[in-house]
Amino acid sequence: MGKNLTTRGEDYSKWYNELVVKADLAENSGVRGCMVIKPYGYAIWEKMQAELDRMFKETGHQNAYFPLFIPKSYFSKEASHVDGFAKECAVVTHYRLKNAEDGSGIIVDPDAKLEEELIVRPTSETIIWDTYRKWIQSYRDLPILVNQWANVVRWEMRTRLFLRTAEFLWQEGHTAHATQQEAIEEAEQMMNVYADFAENFMAIPVIKGTKTESERFAGALETYCIEALMQDGKALQAGTSHFLGQNFAKAFDVKFADRDGKLDFVWATSWGVSTRLMGALVMTHSDDNGLVIPPNLAPDQVVIVPIYRSDEQYDAVCAEAETIVKELKAKGIRVKLDKRDTHKPGWKFNEYELKGVPVRIAIGPKDIENKSVEVARRDTLSKEIIEREGLADKLKALLEEIQKNLFDKALKFRNESITEVNSFEEFKDVLEKKGGFLSAHWDGTSETEEQIKNLTKATIRCIPLNAKTEEGVCVYSGKPSIKRVLFAKAY
Amino acid sequence: MGKNLTTRGEDYSKWYNELVVKADLAENSGVRGCMVIKPYGYAIWEKMQAELDRMFKETGHQNAYFPLFIPKSYFSKEASHVDGFAKECAVVTHYRLKNAEDGSGIIVDPDAKLEEELIVRPTSETIIWDTYRKWIQSYRDLPILVNQWANVVRWEMRTRLFLRTAEFLWQEGHTAHATQQEAIEEAEQMMNVYADFAENFMAIPVIKGTKTESERFAGALETYCIEALMQDGKALQAGTSHFLGQNFAKAFDVKFADRDGKLDFVWATSWGVSTRLMGALVMTHSDDNGLVIPPNLAPDQVVIVPIYRSDEQYDAVCAEAETIVKELKAKGIRVKLDKRDTHKPGWKFNEYELKGVPVRIAIGPKDIENKSVEVARRDTLSKEIIEREGLADKLKALLEEIQKNLFDKALKFRNESITEVNSFEEFKDVLEKKGGFLSAHWDGTSETEEQIKNLTKATIRCIPLNAKTEEGVCVYSGKPSIKRVLFAKAY
Repeated sequence: MGKNLTTRGEDYSKWYNELVVKADLAENSGVRGCMVIKPYGYAIWEKMQAELDRMFKETGHQNAYFPLFIPKSYFSKEASHVDGFAKECAVVTHYRLKNAEDGSGIIVDPDAKLEEELIVRPTSETIIWDTYRKWIQSYRDLPILVNQWANVVRWEMRTRLFLRTAEFLWQEGHTAHATQQEAIEEAEQMMNVYADFAENFMAIPVIKGTKTESERFAGALETYCIEALMQDGKALQAGTSHFLGQNFAKAFDVKFADRDGKLDFVWATSWGVSTRLMGALVMTHSDDNGLVIPPNLAPDQVVIVPIYRSDEQYDAVCAEAETIVKELKAKGIRVKLDKRDTHKPGWKFNEYELKGVPVRIAIGPKDIENKSVEVARRDTLSKEIIEREGLADKLKALLEEIQKNLFDKALKFRNESITEVNSFEEFKDVLEKKGGFLSAHWDGTSETEEQIKNLTKATIRCIPLNAKTEEGVCVYSGKPSIKRVLFAKAY
Repeated sequence: MGKNLTTRGEDYSKWYNELVVKADLAENSGVRGCMVIKPYGYAIWEKMQAELDRMFKETGHQNAYFPLFIPKSYFSKEASHVDGFAKECAVVTHYRLKNAEDGSGIIVDPDAKLEEELIVRPTSETIIWDTYRKWIQSYRDLPILVNQWANVVRWEMRTRLFLRTAEFLWQEGHTAHATQQEAIEEAEQMMNVYADFAENFMAIPVIKGTKTESERFAGALETYCIEALMQDGKALQAGTSHFLGQNFAKAFDVKFADRDGKLDFVWATSWGVSTRLMGALVMTHSDDNGLVIPPNLAPDQVVIVPIYRSDEQYDAVCAEAETIVKELKAKGIRVKLDKRDTHKPGWKFNEYELKGVPVRIAIGPKDIENKSVEVARRDTLSKEIIEREGLADKLKALLEEIQKNLFDKALKFRNESITEVNSFEEFKDVLEKKGGFLSAHWDGTSETEEQIKNLTKATIRCIPLNAKTEEGVCVYSGKPSIKRVLFAKAY
């Protein structure tokens, strides 16, 4: 293929790392653990952002912006939160540099030490609830339905592009409610919004569920999640939505007067998805030839490559291609015409295959003569000669078909990768040979969960919302259990 | 008015500070110098972002994302840049917190000291040019036309909401070119994009010009700017576009091979506008009654307030209002119906006046009977009874008229605030009594500029692009000068 890409069979992890860089999605920067999101990768992220933002606004949310820095003391206010988030983080201790007196360069000015250190936000519950205290007095001020698009920093020791980086981009919703019921409904609603987005926009099938206590967000009473399965049989948490109870309201003293004037603490949720979704996208759909981008997310849905030998042919073919561009744009299709004469068609085919453009059109003098074009699908790698007449409508339908095909394919794989196991031997065997989700009975204790994790590296990804009640015994402890949960190794 | 707002005449600065908070644009946070941008303020910023982003993409730019942190050593690489930016900044020195052994809380872990301190980006030239070195080998890789939407931090001692905050939001374009000519054209183009945006979208008239050497961006060979005038006669720099020559390419060793294989350093530009524009918006159009938002920027362009006494009237009026909402939405008008029965119409009128909603419609049983509505304009505070028939078209036209009227009004004020002065006495006199821009001859030296600044606090805002050549003598030194420049006190 000339792409020099490691295949998935050879080394899945290497394939991923190479592909992200070669397809111009992202690269490592000179700052440890921080990535550069390149224009092509960022254009895909923008598509995700636009759709999520639309969905958030449709469900009544507004955007706002809160400070990047959080005073250290804020973290200590919520007991479980501090353990989860205020450890591996970027700490600002000074606010000035100066020229070294010995002329050796610039140094941190020791006179400019902050009285209290500032933490670069790893998540914003604390600074936001410190703010909500000023916004909320009465039930009339509720609900507050706010979302923030922001960068966050968690100091990770082992980083991988998109999957685990020190700095990443995300959105974090933070809502405040008058009742427990309303907050739980909000948390569930946002899990459903995420699932809808993952499946219908990104073509990534997900399982909705709740986290076990040990996998829960630090400070949450319940964490809802959507779990996806990557091609190598490892799970990836694609989004979480937390019911925070009154924990943050109590930590930051946020009370409201209800209709009868009675004071109570406010109920909270928070929910987020991040640039991690880019990793999920790559590892769900792409193949040994490169990226495969679902049409909904593709910056270019269709690319047109002119085929020609002479200048005369180039002009004629480009003229026809320009007409096609206009027709496609009129139908709302994102189309790019690659007229560059510095690169050969074969090079371009290769390039757009690597970049995962859903549909490639090749058009040459013969096609003009025959009133047809050659259409290649990225998902199936199949080619077809299509009549020129009504091309835009046909491509519109084809893009929908590709979107659906990618989802169906991923769904089939995901469903085939869920295995019911009934003993720990079977558990270990399936985990090693097949991977994927193991549907197993569990006794409900953190101890068992911990033991299984230590022995196999598999964790409970979620307690599926649709798990049916059935009598069984825990695969590890043999104690009674009434539902199966999903275990997997995970990103 | 019941708004309890300081008037501009009493104390302009106080009026501004109060208005930003009372109209729900932004507020101070628990972190020194960092603001919270509230949903209403953020919604206006989103309108600006969307329009600018559209204009950037139309001129061939793509978005990308670069790290928040910059290694300290990067700043030292460009000599003039380090003096301008690497002084008052947030310095990350550690990457971990831990529980204090004496149980007193969490403390910075002394074992987690970074080998090299990281600076929270005050601007991203250095990290971006460090990246461009990897992206650029040949003329075929040029131009690179990249923009980034990001937060930046400059440690300011005296902060004011939107105008000067430690953290602010902005966009920064960073382009790379094969020739000096192309880079200069890019820098000029972006100044023109900003001017177009300020005038035609924000209704803020601006003067295009270049900065003097001492006011130039640290590292630039030329800084183009757009300068606006606030109602109190002080200038505000609303956007800058820099021609950076080969300075950053040399500092980060970014060379390209031209068509003949000859190596040369790459030419650069950078350009940005920030949430400062929110301050310009407030101080250009608003009045003693509150905000005045140009229709293009208004999250709600029209608000409908139902007038009623009985439940029956409420139902009838709301039903009619809903019909109007549909008609307006169909014409692309952003409309809000305030059906709340917890607040009286008078309270609502006040609220929307404070928030600067361009058009307010009041509709009661009598209006339904008369097939009319009451329409109030925020810009002129005038009210009119308008026939119900064809309302949407009339409002569409009215919104355009308001947009134009706001620009015309601001332009008239700005033009009347430019005074030609020909002696230093006159200079000081006009500056003190009238303010605004002083159009004066200047001998072209930094010394004179500095002296005038020390004596009057006025700085050279720009050398207008359209300044005509005329013989004259410097208002301060009496030395010969061939064009007038614009002085003003500035935000």
